[in-house]
Amino acid sequence: MEIKTLENIDITLSPTSKINEVDFENISFGNTFTDHMLVCDFADGKWQQPKIVPYAPITLDPSAKVFHYGQAIFEGMKAYKDDQDDVWLFRPEQNHDRFNKSAVRMCMPEVPEDIFLGGLKKLLQIEKDWVKKGQGNSLYIRPFMFASGKGVVAAPAQFYKFMILLSPAKAYYSGEVKVLIAEHYSRAANGGIGAAKAAGNYAGQFYPTKLANEKGYQQVIWTDDATHTKLEEAGTMNVFFRINDILYTAPTSERILDGITRKSLIELAKRENINVEVRSVLVDELVTAAKDGSLKEIFGAGTAAVVNPIVGFGYKEEYYELPKLENSLALELKAKLTNIQYKKADDTFGWTVKI
Amino acid sequence: MEIKTLENIDITLSPTSKINEVDFENISFGNTFTDHMLVCDFADGKWQQPKIVPYAPITLDPSAKVFHYGQAIFEGMKAYKDDQDDVWLFRPEQNHDRFNKSAVRMCMPEVPEDIFLGGLKKLLQIEKDWVKKGQGNSLYIRPFMFASGKGVVAAPAQFYKFMILLSPAKAYYSGEVKVLIAEHYSRAANGGIGAAKAAGNYAGQFYPTKLANEKGYQQVIWTDDATHTKLEEAGTMNVFFRINDILYTAPTSERILDGITRKSLIELAKRENINVEVRSVLVDELVTAAKDGSLKEIFGAGTAAVVNPIVGFGYKEEYYELPKLENSLALELKAKLTNIQYKKADDTFGWTVKI
Ligand SMILES: Cc1ncc(COP(=O)(O)O)c(C=O)c1O
Ligand SMILES: Cc1ncc(COP(=O)(O)O)c(C=O)c1O
Repeated sequence: MEIKTLENIDITLSPTSKINEVDFENISFGNTFTDHMLVCDFADGKWQQPKIVPYAPITLDPSAKVFHYGQAIFEGMKAYKDDQDDVWLFRPEQNHDRFNKSAVRMCMPEVPEDIFLGGLKKLLQIEKDWVKKGQGNSLYIRPFMFASGKGVVAAPAQFYKFMILLSPAKAYYSGEVKVLIAEHYSRAANGGIGAAKAAGNYAGQFYPTKLANEKGYQQVIWTDDATHTKLEEAGTMNVFFRINDILYTAPTSERILDGITRKSLIELAKRENINVEVRSVLVDELVTAAKDGSLKEIFGAGTAAVVNPIVGFGYKEEYYELPKLENSLALELKAKLTNIQYKKADDTFGWTVKI
Repeated sequence: MEIKTLENIDITLSPTSKINEVDFENISFGNTFTDHMLVCDFADGKWQQPKIVPYAPITLDPSAKVFHYGQAIFEGMKAYKDDQDDVWLFRPEQNHDRFNKSAVRMCMPEVPEDIFLGGLKKLLQIEKDWVKKGQGNSLYIRPFMFASGKGVVAAPAQFYKFMILLSPAKAYYSGEVKVLIAEHYSRAANGGIGAAKAAGNYAGQFYPTKLANEKGYQQVIWTDDATHTKLEEAGTMNVFFRINDILYTAPTSERILDGITRKSLIELAKRENINVEVRSVLVDELVTAAKDGSLKEIFGAGTAAVVNPIVGFGYKEEYYELPKLENSLALELKAKLTNIQYKKADDTFGWTVKI
């Protein structure tokens, strides 16, 4: 695909840049932002003129509905720089599409492609020096929208703000990740908002994740809330399980986010003749496979970490350590996917989009 | 109980008042605010000095976690004025207690009693002219807290803002309310955050409620998400069903908010020798009772409307109209409860607290 740069946009450039103050080698994820941001207001039933302005605080009425009713959604994507200094996005139309699906579920206005993708392109053109070369480096992109309309009445707002922030990121290394399988808490209901990237889905996970942290686990793998027998996904990643030589991942549903990394890995695995089956894995199955040694790998898949190998899991007060493999499918798939993203390998799928 | 006024608070009074511009006879719920608000910041691991300041917009970093991860909770309570011009609260310690339970579930700091109740008392003393006399009139109180800490990383914030807004309210008349019983969508998961007054619980209901509105229903009665067979609660109200002469209401759970109106009505009904049973009512039971005429009443119970009688319900494309009763328990209980709140009847329970 090709993105048409949005030209009908007001631009106010920052008189100074913070770029020289940033230590790009030692940057913690999500805390440093570039010089500019994109802002577009929804008012009078339509999207107003989009603007690129210096990164700055925003001012809201204390009764704005985002504070009271959580009407807010977001996306997470990345820009990569290749050896020729060209900047690339990875399947950005998928993020735009998912953003609008989230918007519908949360009763918010959809954001048109020219603002979401065209505006992002313009913003990235301005901020291209913030995208650093080298595998692992990227510019994390955070499009989000929230209800800015006033009133402490639980009903959809009339006013919204759509924004894009950019944050430089290093290769995501989170240390050895152990996961705890949820036995009691849940992240999503049947008929709920789990498939939307809705703000409220995330805060609900903080407390059970803190309890897991206290037991020595970094993350929780959520199970279905009705029976807690089916493995679903992690907080910000879909999950793959390798039993013998088959990779399994849960089908997406109302409860599970349709991850772009997940779907890309499935296609990549198929191309590489790796056996991949989309079906629910039961907790019991996982425990049995861990005990008899057929469980080879577990890994998370998401934009931030791309692929996050997991070293073991906890369930019912037992800890199950995974074997250390020579030929990890997680690492093989990660290398194949990042090679496409950084333009080091042929993009046979047409996933990458030039800025 | 007695509330100790918080004296250690910074007060900046507004040089002017909006009170004379407000048409108290024609006020829509939740859109008009008094001259002042309470603000208290949580930083460096503790609550800072609380302040009462003129009602004004607030400024936040665009990466504040409330926008991205929905870490936000609120409460809803009311102040009433009696014929002697004294101002009263109704079971305010219950709101404080529930607020802190919500805080724990959302991984947020608890707000101490001196700030929540003592600060509210001080604020109400300043704004007492905004509490209008006369049954039905009240000052709606909105305590809330959200994550003001920065960073697009899905983890609890380090900084929070606790605030109280006040909004004058008229008797809540919402017209004839028809409810639709949820067959597909849900508001809460087992092991989720349904029992917390978390912001994200509310936005998730907007879309299914909009679909219900389009079918001619004003509200949805949520069912359990696993089977959609048990009746739970409405968007901002618990629900009672009267079959013959017994009142039923679902037990509170992880999925259902522990409403203060609900628990007060249960105690009041017991005192009045009205049969009340706390147990789940099945959708099937309701439909059978509607068909054989034993279903007499359905009503919602919550702070905003106190008691909201329902005229009929929809389920599987059928509409079931409720009978028009002479001796409605909904109206009897509403009168008894509001008489306590407005100090027109003896408060045998000790529920009212003077400001
Ligand atoms: C709940 C959840 N699951 C999965 C993912 C992974 O999705 P993607 O691969 O599109 O980043 C994310 C992150 O975006 C997420 O928030
Ligand atoms: C989900 C929900 N249920 C029930 C209620 C009723 O609770 P209360 O009677 O304490 O106002 C509310 C409103 O506060 C609510 O938000």
